[in-house]
Amino acid sequence: MDDGEERKSPAWWGRRAWELLSAVRARAPLVQCITNLVSMDIAANALLAAGASPAMLHCIREVPEFAPRCDSVCVNVGTLSEGWLPSMRAAASAGRPWVLDPVAAAASKFRMEACLSLLDLRPAVVRGNASEILALASRSSAAAAAGSNFKGVDSSHDSGDALQAAKALAQSTGSVIAVSGAVDYITDGEQVVGASNGVALMQKITATGCAVTALITAFVAVEPSDALVAAACALAIFGLAGEIGMESAKGPASLRMHLIDALYGLDEQTVTSRVKISIES
Amino acid sequence: MDDGEERKSPAWWGRRAWELLSAVRARAPLVQCITNLVSMDIAANALLAAGASPAMLHCIREVPEFAPRCDSVCVNVGTLSEGWLPSMRAAASAGRPWVLDPVAAAASKFRMEACLSLLDLRPAVVRGNASEILALASRSSAAAAAGSNFKGVDSSHDSGDALQAAKALAQSTGSVIAVSGAVDYITDGEQVVGASNGVALMQKITATGCAVTALITAFVAVEPSDALVAAACALAIFGLAGEIGMESAKGPASLRMHLIDALYGLDEQTVTSRVKISIES
Amino acid sequence: MDDGEERKSPAWWGRRAWELLSAVRARAPLVQCITNLVSMDIAANALLAAGASPAMLHCIREVPEFAPRCDSVCVNVGTLSEGWLPSMRAAASAGRPWVLDPVAAAASKFRMEACLSLLDLRPAVVRGNASEILALASRSSAAAAAGSNFKGVDSSHDSGDALQAAKALAQSTGSVIAVSGAVDYITDGEQVVGASNGVALMQKITATGCAVTALITAFVAVEPSDALVAAACALAIFGLAGEIGMESAKGPASLRMHLIDALYGLDEQTVTSRVKISIES
Repeated sequence: MDDGEERKSPAWWGRRAWELLSAVRARAPLVQCITNLVSMDIAANALLAAGASPAMLHCIREVPEFAPRCDSVCVNVGTLSEGWLPSMRAAASAGRPWVLDPVAAAASKFRMEACLSLLDLRPAVVRGNASEILALASRSSAAAAAGSNFKGVDSSHDSGDALQAAKALAQSTGSVIAVSGAVDYITDGEQVVGASNGVALMQKITATGCAVTALITAFVAVEPSDALVAAACALAIFGLAGEIGMESAKGPASLRMHLIDALYGLDEQTVTSRVKISIES
Repeated sequence: MDDGEERKSPAWWGRRAWELLSAVRARAPLVQCITNLVSMDIAANALLAAGASPAMLHCIREVPEFAPRCDSVCVNVGTLSEGWLPSMRAAASAGRPWVLDPVAAAASKFRMEACLSLLDLRPAVVRGNASEILALASRSSAAAAAGSNFKGVDSSHDSGDALQAAKALAQSTGSVIAVSGAVDYITDGEQVVGASNGVALMQKITATGCAVTALITAFVAVEPSDALVAAACALAIFGLAGEIGMESAKGPASLRMHLIDALYGLDEQTVTSRVKISIES
Repeated sequence: MDDGEERKSPAWWGRRAWELLSAVRARAPLVQCITNLVSMDIAANALLAAGASPAMLHCIREVPEFAPRCDSVCVNVGTLSEGWLPSMRAAASAGRPWVLDPVAAAASKFRMEACLSLLDLRPAVVRGNASEILALASRSSAAAAAGSNFKGVDSSHDSGDALQAAKALAQSTGSVIAVSGAVDYITDGEQVVGASNGVALMQKITATGCAVTALITAFVAVEPSDALVAAACALAIFGLAGEIGMESAKGPASLRMHLIDALYGLDEQTVTSRVKISIES
């Protein structure tokens, strides 16, 4: 049975997800995050709960010295500014595997251009919602902004709507593209993997998308040679923590707490039996 | 019975509060927040829990393009800086209904002048504590700063103390002025409405004031033609969520969680029967 | 029995911790924090739960006017930038007792130089982990950065490893140095005090170190004449809140919530019987 066949087995994915989570816990990768001001707390806490070591510094005077010493780098444009963009570019250029979160890529011409310039620096993974990936693929803020259904940082499309755009973007950039949604799709331009853990209420917690991008960055640190697998496993693990958290939650704020607790407490049996990843094509 | 008479009925207010919360849930208004660094998480989560769609971007390169596409704008000067002030002014000038939170207006001459310059841009609502409204009304940082009882971001006055100042400020600016306290007073310079939901422990959670200002902004998005009603209903709804949260809370941190959960879960029966708003004059 | 003898009694420390916490609750000191972007929420909430009044403003246009009106000042370099450093220096120079948190001091040459320049402004207390204190004491980012065990903001040393460095640093700077760890060591260069409350899981919550530095700042506000005692009591109180929180916690996120609730609810019996501070030398 070749690797492609093996990957069709849900059990293979469950084992891989557990191996990667265990590797993060064992190695505690140093993950530099240049992320938005809203997500700093939840992103750092998600990384710590998973076993990684977050570092949130962003100053251009230290990024060129610090980022090369990290295991991986997370760049998130949610509260982009002219002052921080050079630091994002420097961190992305530090020679470490890095992950891009193009939050609200279509919010402005400035932001779209910033995202496209970052894309040129070859992120290992780009994770966004369907609207963000569609906007990036069309290389334009106008496309996504047109019409009356622009929703800022929230998606106005389903992840499936963005699948062809994601494949095209992966092919043109060489990055793995992950589209979050009810089913998360992850593609390298050829293969498409679907990860379907998670609960809808996670969308009512701010910055869960940013937190899972940070988690992907930690997984990429321990599996830099297969970013597709790293991204799929991180998305499934985070979604699974949400499912477990939901068992005790009474609303979005308690879900947030229980999700982080669950991420910290995940064990082998739970991960291998409940991770839902499958090859879509 | 004219509208003024109708408004004297507690039941009228309960129905209006439920209608506006339902409208926020149904329409999910896009609310841009240029808010302080402490409040970003709780403000975004409060907006999401209420059904709105928050967007926290602040860069001057994108505000003039983004803010006009939003349903309403929230400006909060809590961690004011010279770099962000032009963005605040641009967002306030974008032609959308907007709400000002003059956090610690008397903290410095620079901050007072910034607040006064923002006031000139005609916010639909200004929400502050008694000390902040008194300072703004006297157009001076010296007045509030004098004496030994300056408390930074916390109020050293009761909301009732600021009522005349609030009326005068509403008359001179054309904005609705909301003074938070044990009873929240909301006035357009003529009418005064009191909203008395809430629990004292909410003051021990950072940025609850900022969060309720964000919620007012969402309510103004769905009721731009009556900012007095929108502000009163948002204040009562947030306070009611605090009352329900308090039933399960063991301290300020669990209150914060339960408050957001309660805000998400509010139903018609609870809102219409427990909102406490009345015409004061 | 002289004061030195008295201090050998665990009961003396329990009483002092309760007296200082009670003083914070009674006086509600205004504590200005120029802290990092990750820690703002938890630092402000820890201060509020303890009874202090936090103010997080950082703009250079207001710091020289505002900081002198505060009871104490907290400076934390976690997300240092060129723009904020002058504000940190201005706040530290305002004539109020102040506390320095040299987060990740060895992360870059720029950061180390910033920390050393702040040290020259005579903080009452410096609180860091062992790696940070070792780096400061060697006045070099090179020393701590060498080797493969650099962990960014997390410590790669035990607090005991840094004890001699802490004493030397206290002697050369005149500041009280507090080294956090399984046991927290606090020294003025002569005396060494150990505080051993706390639980290991607190390290899996982001910015607990920053929060306890903020709490030390509040305690220094009410006991400026004995920063050694203020720092030791604040560290023990925060650790004790963690121990109580741990009784209800199911992971790092619920620990965070229960810790803040416990800090708010601490009573005399609990503090005087459970604070664990002792003279080490």
